[in-house]
Amino acid sequence: MDFYSDNTAPAAPEVLAALAAANQGVARSYGDDAWSRRLDEAFGRYFGRPVRVFPVATGTAANALALAACTPPWGEIFATDAAHVIHDECGAVELQTGGARLTRLPSPDGLLDASVLEAWLADHPVSLHSPQPAAVSITQASECGTVYDAARVAAIAGACRRHGLTLHMDGARFANALATLGVHPAEITWKAGVDVLSFGATKNGAMGAEAVVFFDPGRVGDFELRRKRAAHLFSKMRYLSAQLLACVEQEFFARNAARANRLAARIGAAAGRRLLFPVQANAVFVRFDPGQKQALRERGFGFYDWGPPREEAARFVVSWDQDETHVDALCEALAAWN
Amino acid sequence: MDFYSDNTAPAAPEVLAALAAANQGVARSYGDDAWSRRLDEAFGRYFGRPVRVFPVATGTAANALALAACTPPWGEIFATDAAHVIHDECGAVELQTGGARLTRLPSPDGLLDASVLEAWLADHPVSLHSPQPAAVSITQASECGTVYDAARVAAIAGACRRHGLTLHMDGARFANALATLGVHPAEITWKAGVDVLSFGATKNGAMGAEAVVFFDPGRVGDFELRRKRAAHLFSKMRYLSAQLLACVEQEFFARNAARANRLAARIGAAAGRRLLFPVQANAVFVRFDPGQKQALRERGFGFYDWGPPREEAARFVVSWDQDETHVDALCEALAAWN
Amino acid sequence: MDFYSDNTAPAAPEVLAALAAANQGVARSYGDDAWSRRLDEAFGRYFGRPVRVFPVATGTAANALALAACTPPWGEIFATDAAHVIHDECGAVELQTGGARLTRLPSPDGLLDASVLEAWLADHPVSLHSPQPAAVSITQASECGTVYDAARVAAIAGACRRHGLTLHMDGARFANALATLGVHPAEITWKAGVDVLSFGATKNGAMGAEAVVFFDPGRVGDFELRRKRAAHLFSKMRYLSAQLLACVEQEFFARNAARANRLAARIGAAAGRRLLFPVQANAVFVRFDPGQKQALRERGFGFYDWGPPREEAARFVVSWDQDETHVDALCEALAAWN
Amino acid sequence: MDFYSDNTAPAAPEVLAALAAANQGVARSYGDDAWSRRLDEAFGRYFGRPVRVFPVATGTAANALALAACTPPWGEIFATDAAHVIHDECGAVELQTGGARLTRLPSPDGLLDASVLEAWLADHPVSLHSPQPAAVSITQASECGTVYDAARVAAIAGACRRHGLTLHMDGARFANALATLGVHPAEITWKAGVDVLSFGATKNGAMGAEAVVFFDPGRVGDFELRRKRAAHLFSKMRYLSAQLLACVEQEFFARNAARANRLAARIGAAAGRRLLFPVQANAVFVRFDPGQKQALRERGFGFYDWGPPREEAARFVVSWDQDETHVDALCEALAAWN
Repeated sequence: MDFYSDNTAPAAPEVLAALAAANQGVARSYGDDAWSRRLDEAFGRYFGRPVRVFPVATGTAANALALAACTPPWGEIFATDAAHVIHDECGAVELQTGGARLTRLPSPDGLLDASVLEAWLADHPVSLHSPQPAAVSITQASECGTVYDAARVAAIAGACRRHGLTLHMDGARFANALATLGVHPAEITWKAGVDVLSFGATKNGAMGAEAVVFFDPGRVGDFELRRKRAAHLFSKMRYLSAQLLACVEQEFFARNAARANRLAARIGAAAGRRLLFPVQANAVFVRFDPGQKQALRERGFGFYDWGPPREEAARFVVSWDQDETHVDALCEALAAWN
Repeated sequence: MDFYSDNTAPAAPEVLAALAAANQGVARSYGDDAWSRRLDEAFGRYFGRPVRVFPVATGTAANALALAACTPPWGEIFATDAAHVIHDECGAVELQTGGARLTRLPSPDGLLDASVLEAWLADHPVSLHSPQPAAVSITQASECGTVYDAARVAAIAGACRRHGLTLHMDGARFANALATLGVHPAEITWKAGVDVLSFGATKNGAMGAEAVVFFDPGRVGDFELRRKRAAHLFSKMRYLSAQLLACVEQEFFARNAARANRLAARIGAAAGRRLLFPVQANAVFVRFDPGQKQALRERGFGFYDWGPPREEAARFVVSWDQDETHVDALCEALAAWN
Repeated sequence: MDFYSDNTAPAAPEVLAALAAANQGVARSYGDDAWSRRLDEAFGRYFGRPVRVFPVATGTAANALALAACTPPWGEIFATDAAHVIHDECGAVELQTGGARLTRLPSPDGLLDASVLEAWLADHPVSLHSPQPAAVSITQASECGTVYDAARVAAIAGACRRHGLTLHMDGARFANALATLGVHPAEITWKAGVDVLSFGATKNGAMGAEAVVFFDPGRVGDFELRRKRAAHLFSKMRYLSAQLLACVEQEFFARNAARANRLAARIGAAAGRRLLFPVQANAVFVRFDPGQKQALRERGFGFYDWGPPREEAARFVVSWDQDETHVDALCEALAAWN
Repeated sequence: MDFYSDNTAPAAPEVLAALAAANQGVARSYGDDAWSRRLDEAFGRYFGRPVRVFPVATGTAANALALAACTPPWGEIFATDAAHVIHDECGAVELQTGGARLTRLPSPDGLLDASVLEAWLADHPVSLHSPQPAAVSITQASECGTVYDAARVAAIAGACRRHGLTLHMDGARFANALATLGVHPAEITWKAGVDVLSFGATKNGAMGAEAVVFFDPGRVGDFELRRKRAAHLFSKMRYLSAQLLACVEQEFFARNAARANRLAARIGAAAGRRLLFPVQANAVFVRFDPGQKQALRERGFGFYDWGPPREEAARFVVSWDQDETHVDALCEALAAWN
């Protein structure tokens, strides 16, 4: 009963079908194929405005390359202290930017508050001697399973505009956020002031495909050279592009996210007063009494510890493919302790 | 009639089958899955000795990370002036090494000669002020479609040993070289002194999977951190590993390469006196009279120009999936000019 | 009346004399001169044990190169949130390390507490996905004008040993700390567990010379290549070395620091209840009522604002060459408000 | 009798006097001082047009930072196979550019020929996969002691313009070239199409000071941040600036170079038929019979071997301060073998 992560799930059948369909005949390499050439248009329809889209194979590549496109080597990038770019990418952002600084801003729930950003910037004047503020990265849905609504994104974007910063959204679980908010993808991205998005597909059913989406083509610059140099320009690009097209053009993608969210909400309800954060996507964070985590593991539940190790908390992530009987079992166990 | 590259071909049906077979149930992410855990053993059988194997998704990633594992930022890497790492990776090696120098050594046919390396090293004394020689990278089969036999590799390895250099082999078309030489993979790798290999699968039938193979586990060092930081640690790693297992465990991989080589040899025979290099793998390089390339293109043949643009030469690459009737047509056209 | 910084002072006459004395005849370049060859021995006497010493010209170079010598590109370096390496070096550490992470630890007074470091490490488990803790950098005297005693350094060093971290000391104002503590240089460096020191000379009377001091020769590694590549291997190295020899071999260096400290203490006494931090070196941090800073500036005092701009605080730094009548004037002005 | 290099000489008395004169009273740090603020104007007069000037302390810093200002991390820089930036800077250019490629162009005498550059560019088409040509670096006077006249510089600049490349001049021995050519500094720099110059002072009498000179202020960009991050923004900048002002405002600088050139010409005349290159600056390259170099060394002459070690050649460099009796002795020894 695996609740470790949504990336332990297999690829969705629709994605496998898309790969099989793309596996016909020759196709020019490095993105000059029929699938890749359709990406800008397909994502443009999905987002409701012209965009430029670049497939890569991992979320870390998407984040690091997107941030590198808007941050000089002496730049500074702000993110919450829970951010994937800070904790879980082993310096990938630093590599691709040529050494930019990642600065943690405090957040109780994984969501950045515009006022926290503003206060930091007010307290840290910039000079020739300091790293130069360049970008803000927010995660939607956040690493704590919480979600930014459009107004909150817009408030951050406003602060970014005032200070000349680019706003990046790490959308590794973008589909889950959308499913919760019930809004058009435009509302929480470009309409709210996001400049560049790491569009996540892998966690929600792709085999291995993410997209860097520029809402302002003027920001693309040398992105293609950056991607090539990062070894993320695939020779047989059609297989990345076919996955991404399936995700933005077929119905399963939203359905997968909605299902995972719904199951997570069930777990959240069972956890009740033990919840660390509101359940707004497909992850549930639970505080336990001593011994309870061990007991769950002995019953066959797999999950990661959460937070400072000295706390008795755990993270449960529900994948698109989660066996609902496992969710039933987990809910039952949690409810018994409530 | 596409002779642009072997990466315009689709994935082999065996690879697609392997992906479908791997697409079952949950699997721990980031390489802690049943497929990835079998890699060292499977490649160990393939190469006839214990090895450490790390999947990545592109040949550029394999080369850049393999070379970074043995070259400090102030190091110098030697390769022929035709090498992919020099011309076709947009500085990926420089990125991953942190700025190492790539130095071109002359070669008339894409193959490095040990004596050329020795002469260069003798003529360029090392000091605190110069980049520090660290590695040699040779390509098997070479970018000119030629092949190193075991003795030639061993001669280069001997020079490397004498000067404290690591020997890397870019095996983007390793299978094609093997098919030509008819030897065990061990003979042209570790037995001949190769330290680390970029094992290519994509061009010969994989969808997108390459492997960095360390023949000496002592050289692995921080490779896993390097790969993660380069954004080439895949969350759903099983899909890379399943492709690679299929390639080293199933018969199709050798068959694909042999077929491509055979068809290339047919084209080479038709080109006759016009050949730039002996045809030893799946690529054919032909010198033309003025106007002939244009005539071929008008008849529907697709291929890249080769060499200094002022020359009338072209490269034809045969893929594992090449339509033999296209080869027939090309041979006929070439033979008519011979 | 300049209290901006101790680097607005000229060079001490003893340093100018040393430069003139070194300006005789030919000397082999790049450190193979009589002055540079004496450095290890002279600093060895100063510190009471064999050391390896490498001159550079700026404190930023000393810090960045020292930290690069003990931190891989994917490493993490801890420093207080007031640290010069974090705020005032524009990413120099990131450049020289190849992209390492600088992580801020909270400190109310510029001094790191071992327990804060231990708690952070306990709360942030390391994995393949995270930056890898590699080093701790402490500043002696700190950026808040406070000083580590030997016990406090040793406590930090103990935590470093337990976690496999290198301990670096940014000693831009090392002489001022020594003057306050009245101990032998060994007591607060290698005897307390410091591995590598940026020995500052410029602020205390040199023209432009700092030294990276390795207390364990085994840690030097490729430092000379790093320094050369950083463009800090000077061709006429004798002029850096002569300055450094003067500082560790002549009496003026300790006298300069003691004088600056004494004058700072006078200012501190005058500031009284307005002090932000205890005055333990040559810098004084004062909280003001609204309008008072402006009044001081109108009377001709030059100084920097301190801290979050919304606070009414200021930093006064006393140089080795400070005109004591200016100190008199400042004390008088401050005392009037106490 | 030291002919190793011109950087074994001491600083000129005029430089020491300038340092002493600058050593008065407080001066704002990091370049906000009276000396540094005069640099643009003083160099503007020297070059006959508005310029932007940035002091650094080593020639390697000047070259690496100047090239980094005009080359992206995926860029390619062309220089002759004798260039200091290629052989003698241990990867400094790669560090500051973030990993750009240095490509050697052949030259028999240290001087680049525009036609060689043009031919290379014609033969190496640029694509998304290749490094992107960005800059050309020429050395004036060259590492072979030869000199570009204005027409030759202009021809290279023309090729640069046609291909969108920036033209950098490494002027470590700029004064020696000027002394030979007898032209105004403008003629071989901006009037001939040079975009950015590393102006060398150290070898010709400074203690340690070089300047990066931008002839087009529009190219400065983030240079100040680059320099700071490279740890070459000196706190007591006045001491670099005072040296540089002395060099461009006082007569000794031209006199020093002329004297060194004159003595080198004497050696060249004595070497006669043994010369490897024409003597056009302050370096002389001589081919010897077996045993002759050893004989010279036994007589007390110090010099470096030159070229492939298998050749019996040597380099003699004459400094501004060279003892003329040593030159007499060397001439006598050489003449005896002619």
